[in-house]
Amino acid sequence: MQRLWAFLLVWLSMPLGGWTQTTTVTSPDGSLVVTFRLEEGRPVYQIDRLGMPLILPSPMGFVLKEQPPLVGPFRLIGLVRDTVDTVWTQPWGEKKHIRNHYHELRLQLEETTERPRRLDLVFRVFDEGVGFRYEWPEQAYLDRFVIMDELTAFRLAGDHQAWWIPAYHPNRYEYLYRRTPISQLDTVHTPLTMETADGWFLSVHEAEVEDYATMTLAPSDSLTLEVDLVPWSDGTRVKAQTPFRSPWRVLLVGDNAGELITNYTLLNLNAPNRLGDVSWVRPAKYVGIWWEMHIGRSTWGSGPRHGATTENAKRYIDFAARHGFDAVLIEGWNVGWDGDWTQNGDKFRFTEPYPDFDIEEVARYARDRGVQLIGHHETACHITNYERQMEAAFAFYQRLGIHMVKTGYVAHGRNCIWIDEQGQVHREWHHGQFMVRHHRRVLETAARYQIAINAHEPVKDTGERRTYPNMVSREGARGQEYNAWSEDGGNPPEHTTILPFTRLLAGPMDFTPGIFDILIKDRPNNRVNTTLAKQLALYVVIYSPLQMAADLPEHYEARLDAFQFIKDVPVDWEDTRVLHARIGDYVTIVRKDRHSDDWYLGSITDEYGRTLEAPLSFLEPGRRYLAEIYRDAPDADWRTNPLALEIVRQVVDASTVLTLRLAPGGGTAIRFHPIEE
Amino acid sequence: MQRLWAFLLVWLSMPLGGWTQTTTVTSPDGSLVVTFRLEEGRPVYQIDRLGMPLILPSPMGFVLKEQPPLVGPFRLIGLVRDTVDTVWTQPWGEKKHIRNHYHELRLQLEETTERPRRLDLVFRVFDEGVGFRYEWPEQAYLDRFVIMDELTAFRLAGDHQAWWIPAYHPNRYEYLYRRTPISQLDTVHTPLTMETADGWFLSVHEAEVEDYATMTLAPSDSLTLEVDLVPWSDGTRVKAQTPFRSPWRVLLVGDNAGELITNYTLLNLNAPNRLGDVSWVRPAKYVGIWWEMHIGRSTWGSGPRHGATTENAKRYIDFAARHGFDAVLIEGWNVGWDGDWTQNGDKFRFTEPYPDFDIEEVARYARDRGVQLIGHHETACHITNYERQMEAAFAFYQRLGIHMVKTGYVAHGRNCIWIDEQGQVHREWHHGQFMVRHHRRVLETAARYQIAINAHEPVKDTGERRTYPNMVSREGARGQEYNAWSEDGGNPPEHTTILPFTRLLAGPMDFTPGIFDILIKDRPNNRVNTTLAKQLALYVVIYSPLQMAADLPEHYEARLDAFQFIKDVPVDWEDTRVLHARIGDYVTIVRKDRHSDDWYLGSITDEYGRTLEAPLSFLEPGRRYLAEIYRDAPDADWRTNPLALEIVRQVVDASTVLTLRLAPGGGTAIRFHPIEE
Repeated sequence: MQRLWAFLLVWLSMPLGGWTQTTTVTSPDGSLVVTFRLEEGRPVYQIDRLGMPLILPSPMGFVLKEQPPLVGPFRLIGLVRDTVDTVWTQPWGEKKHIRNHYHELRLQLEETTERPRRLDLVFRVFDEGVGFRYEWPEQAYLDRFVIMDELTAFRLAGDHQAWWIPAYHPNRYEYLYRRTPISQLDTVHTPLTMETADGWFLSVHEAEVEDYATMTLAPSDSLTLEVDLVPWSDGTRVKAQTPFRSPWRVLLVGDNAGELITNYTLLNLNAPNRLGDVSWVRPAKYVGIWWEMHIGRSTWGSGPRHGATTENAKRYIDFAARHGFDAVLIEGWNVGWDGDWTQNGDKFRFTEPYPDFDIEEVARYARDRGVQLIGHHETACHITNYERQMEAAFAFYQRLGIHMVKTGYVAHGRNCIWIDEQGQVHREWHHGQFMVRHHRRVLETAARYQIAINAHEPVKDTGERRTYPNMVSREGARGQEYNAWSEDGGNPPEHTTILPFTRLLAGPMDFTPGIFDILIKDRPNNRVNTTLAKQLALYVVIYSPLQMAADLPEHYEARLDAFQFIKDVPVDWEDTRVLHARIGDYVTIVRKDRHSDDWYLGSITDEYGRTLEAPLSFLEPGRRYLAEIYRDAPDADWRTNPLALEIVRQVVDASTVLTLRLAPGGGTAIRFHPIEE
Repeated sequence: MQRLWAFLLVWLSMPLGGWTQTTTVTSPDGSLVVTFRLEEGRPVYQIDRLGMPLILPSPMGFVLKEQPPLVGPFRLIGLVRDTVDTVWTQPWGEKKHIRNHYHELRLQLEETTERPRRLDLVFRVFDEGVGFRYEWPEQAYLDRFVIMDELTAFRLAGDHQAWWIPAYHPNRYEYLYRRTPISQLDTVHTPLTMETADGWFLSVHEAEVEDYATMTLAPSDSLTLEVDLVPWSDGTRVKAQTPFRSPWRVLLVGDNAGELITNYTLLNLNAPNRLGDVSWVRPAKYVGIWWEMHIGRSTWGSGPRHGATTENAKRYIDFAARHGFDAVLIEGWNVGWDGDWTQNGDKFRFTEPYPDFDIEEVARYARDRGVQLIGHHETACHITNYERQMEAAFAFYQRLGIHMVKTGYVAHGRNCIWIDEQGQVHREWHHGQFMVRHHRRVLETAARYQIAINAHEPVKDTGERRTYPNMVSREGARGQEYNAWSEDGGNPPEHTTILPFTRLLAGPMDFTPGIFDILIKDRPNNRVNTTLAKQLALYVVIYSPLQMAADLPEHYEARLDAFQFIKDVPVDWEDTRVLHARIGDYVTIVRKDRHSDDWYLGSITDEYGRTLEAPLSFLEPGRRYLAEIYRDAPDADWRTNPLALEIVRQVVDASTVLTLRLAPGGGTAIRFHPIEE
C-alpha cells in the first residue's frame, strides 16, 4: 500500500513541474494540517489547526562540523505517504489500550550539489499532535558526521502564556515552574506547555531520543523558539553515523488543558516494546528508608545514626507486610556515602554493604514476608565508576531476588563524569548525548537481569517506557523532598497543579507523595505546603507505576483512617480521564483500576480553595458505587489547619454530580467501589 | 427568629465595646465571606472566598445635594441576621426551579451628629455571589434628598482580564466587547465580567433597580472600580424620598466561566412576582417583517416598498402557520416612520396604521390561523409622546388580541426626550433614573392589558422579570442586524462567544438568530460571520423566551432540512447546564425542554475551529435518545464555505461522549429525543 501511494503521488505531481510545490499532510480527522515546501530549496514546515496557525512557516536543517551546513538547496526526490491505525496495549500504565492513528508523510530530499547528501523528513500527524524527525539514510557522500547545531525552529503565532523551567541550571530539572509570556522566556527545558489567547493548549517536547542530545528551546526573537541541543563537553552536539535519525520533535495540541494529559502522541512515537515478555516488571506501592534521612533523623552514611541498618530495614519490611505494600526501598546501604559523596562518586561500591547492614538477611526476611526490596544505585553521576560495576551490580541484585532499582545521578550542573582511555576526565551535562547513551545502556543491562529502573536526577522522559517497559518511573522535577529541607519554603501549593501539565506530560514521576506529618516535627523551619487530603489526592493526580508512601511508619500508624486510602489506591490503571483542568490552579483526574472495577478520583488546588462540580459519568451506567471520600474538613486550610480531614461514605452512580470542596491548599481523594447487588 | 437573633447579637456584642468591631457574614457553605467594619465611623466592606481576597476593603456612602455627604462617622445601632432557603418557580425561564439560599446581615447605622441621619446596609451572601444595598428608613432628619454621587467602590485584588463595553457612548449598549486588563478600562457598563489570574470568574452587576439610576463603573486608580451613576440632564443622579433603597450591588463568582451562566443570584435578589397569574405571558418563537427592512428589500416608512402591507403580513402569517410558529412581528405598520424618524419621535401614532395596512383584517387573519401578532412601539425615545398615547396603545393591541409588544428606543446618546409642564424639552440618557422610571411604567401599564414587553434599545436588564414576568426579553447588545448593514464588518465570530458571559448574565436577549442567507444576497458588502450550523446553535446558546427566526421565509423554504431544528427547538426550559466555557473562544450549553423530555445542545466557537468532548451525562440514565445532530461539514469554514452543513442521527445515552467538531466560525446544534422502548 505504501509503495503504491508513493508511485501514485510521484506520478500525480509530475505535471505540476516537478517537486517544488507545497505538500500537505493532514491528521485523520482533518483538523491538524502540516504544510511543507522548499523555499529556494530550503525546507520549511508549518502547522495549522482548524483555521488557526499553530506554527508559522519555520526552518529546518543542521550545522555540521567540518562540512557545509545541511540546509539546502534540496530537491525532492521521493515522497511516501502512509496511514497507521492500530491499538496497542501497555503492559502497565495510566491507560491500557492506546490508539495509534496518524497520517505519515516522508519527504526524501537530496542536495542539488555535485556530491549531494541526502536527508529524509518524516511527519506523523495525529488528531492530537504532530511529530517530525530527520533521517539520514545510508548514502554515498555522508557517513560519519557531527552535528554542531540543529536549526529546527518553532515560530509561534502569538505571545502565548508558558509554564517553564530554565535549562543549563545547576539543579537539573528541579526548579519551580515560572509562568510568563513566551517573549519573556529563558532557554527552557521541555515539555514546554503554552496556553494561547484563543483557548488552545500546546506543548512542545520530543520523543524517542535514541542516540542524540536532548533538546532545550531557546528564544531567538520574541516569538520563535529554536532547538538548542545540549552539548558535549567538547562543544559538539551529536556524534552520528548513517543510517541515523533524530528524535521526534513533537507538538501536542488540546482544546483544553486536560486534553494534554490524556494525549498519547509521545508514546505512539516511540517504538514498540523491544524486551518481549516483561511480566517481571510489576507496578508497586512502596515504603522505604528515605524520608527519615531527608528530615535529618538518620543518615545515608555510616555512623551512629545510619539509616540502612538490618534492624531498621526489618522494621520497614514488617510495616510493609502488615499494610500490604509491595516493596521496600533502602537507601544508603552500600559503601560510598561517607564524606561529601556528591564530590566522590568514584567511591561508590554497588555490591558492598556497610557492616551494619546484612543484605542477605534483609533480602531473606523480606522474601519470607512477601515483600520485594527495591535496590538503590546512587552514582553521583560518576558514570565511569558506575558502568565499570554495573553488570555485577545488577547481577548481585538479581541473585537477591530484586526486580527494581532506583538509580541516582546527583551532581550539580555539568558534572557527569567519564574517564577516557587516556585517563582524562570529562564532565558532561545530565541531558546530552553522552547521558542519553548511558541511560540506554542501563536500561538494556538491567533488562537482561529482569530489573526495572526508577531513575532520579535522570535525563528527561521522552516516552522510552513504550520500547523499554522496564523504564518504570523517574524524577526530573522538584519532588516531595524539597519540602523537607529547601530554604525557599518548599514546594508552594500550586506546584503540583502545574506538574500534571508540564513534567508529567513526559511520563511517570516518582514524586513520593503521602507525607502525613505535614508540619514536619523534626524540621521546625520546614513544612509540607498542603492539607492532608491533598497528600492523598496526589496518588491519583500524579501518575507513576511506582508510588511511595513516603512518610515514616509511625506517622501512618497514627492516622490509619487516612492511611486506608494509600493502602487502597492502585498503581496500575485501565483508563484515565480529566474532569477539571486549569494549569497552576486546580486539576481533577479520575482513573480506573486495571485489576478491579474500582475508580479513583484525585482533585487538588493551589493556595486558594475551590468548589468544583464533578459529574461521575465515567462510572458504569446502571451500577451503584460506594464512594469513600477523603476531603478537607470545612475549616481546613493548608496554612492554619492542614490536618483537618473528613472521611465520608456516599452511594453514587453515573448520574451523580459530586461537589468537591477543596480547602486552600487542599484536595479530595475518592475511591469508588461497586456495590454488589 | 429574626428578632431573637437581633437581640442576641446586640447583647453578645456589648461587652466588646459597643459596635466598633468587625462583623462578618458568610455564605451558607462558608466559602464566601463578607467582612464589614466602621473605620473611624466610615463604612468599609470586603469580600473573600476560600482564602482569596475578591474585593479588598472598599468604601461606601453618598454625596447628597445641599446636605453633608452621607459617609459617616456612623455608629452601629442595630444588627439583624437572617437566613433564607427557599425554592421558587419561574413561570417561564431558562430553569424552572431556582433555589434562593443566602445569609443576610443588616447593619443599622446612625450618624454621630446632633441631627443624625440613618442608613441601613444590607448584605445577602449566597454561595455563588454577594448582593448589598443601601436602605434609608423613614427618619426624623431626612425626607426628600438628591444623590449627587454614590461612593461605593470595588477594590479589586488583581489586574484581572475583563470583557467590557464603554458607557456614555452614542449607541447605548451596542458595542463589540473589548478584552483588556482592568487597568486599561474606560468607564464601562455592567455586567462587567472578569477572569482572575488564579482561575476565578467574577462579574459585577446590579439587581432590582426600582427607582434609581443604573450604575456604570469608572476606574479610579488602576484596580479600583467606582460606581458612577448615570446622571439626569440636570446633573443630579437620583431623586429620592425616604423610605428609599438603592439597587443591589452584586458580585457574581464562579470557579469556571460556565458557572456564571447558571448563577441565579441576580434573579434571587429581585422581589417575587407582583403580577399574580401570568399565564397570559407565553414564550414564543416568531417570524416577522423585520430583516427585509434591514437588508433594504423593503422600508419601515410608507411608499412603494413599504414592508408592513396587509398582503405581506398575510404572507408571514401563512408561513408561521405552515411551520408551527407562535407569532408574527410586524414593524413599520403605524404612522410616524416617514422622514428621519429618529429625529421626529413625536410623529409616532401608536394606534394609526398606514393606509396599506388593514390591521383589523391582519389580526383576524392571524387569529383564524392560530398565530399571534406581536405589536410594535418604536418611540425614537420620545418618551412624552409615547407616554401620552401609551394607555390607548396597549388597549388597542389588547382589543386585537395581542399579548406581546416589541418596544424600541432608537436615539443616539443623551436624546431620550421629555417635555415638562412649561413645555421645556429635556434630553436624558437611556440609562438614568428617568428611563428606569419610564420602563417601570411601561411594564405596569402593559401588565394591566395582559401584554408582555420585548424592549429594544432598552435600559439594561437587572432581573426585573422575576417581579414583572411580562418583561420577557430585550435587546441591549449588538444583535444580528449589525450583520446586515454595519460598516465595521458586522459582528465578528467571537461576539456570540462573549455575550453568554457578559450581556446574557443580566437576562434574556432578543438577538434574532437564524439567518440562513449567510452571504446576504441583497447586501454584497455585508454578510453574517458564522456558518449555518452556528446560526442554529445560537437558539440554544442565547437564552430568550422569545426567539425570532429572523430570515425571510423563502430562505427557510430553501433549506427545510436545517430549518427543522428551528421548528423543533423550544423557547422555555426546565433546566440549563454548561458543558464548555471559555469566554470569547467557545461555549457549549445544554437545556431541557420544559414541556417534553427532550434535551437540546448548542455549541459555538469563534473564528477558530474546535474539537470538544461533550459527555451526555445530563440525559436520563438508562434511557436511549435519538440525537439529531446539525453540524458543520468537514470542509465548512465561516469565511469560505459557511453553508456546508451535515445532519446526522445517532443513538446515544447518558454514557455517550460526543465529539463536537466545530468549524472555524462554526457550531453544532443537537436535539436529543427519547426513544420509546
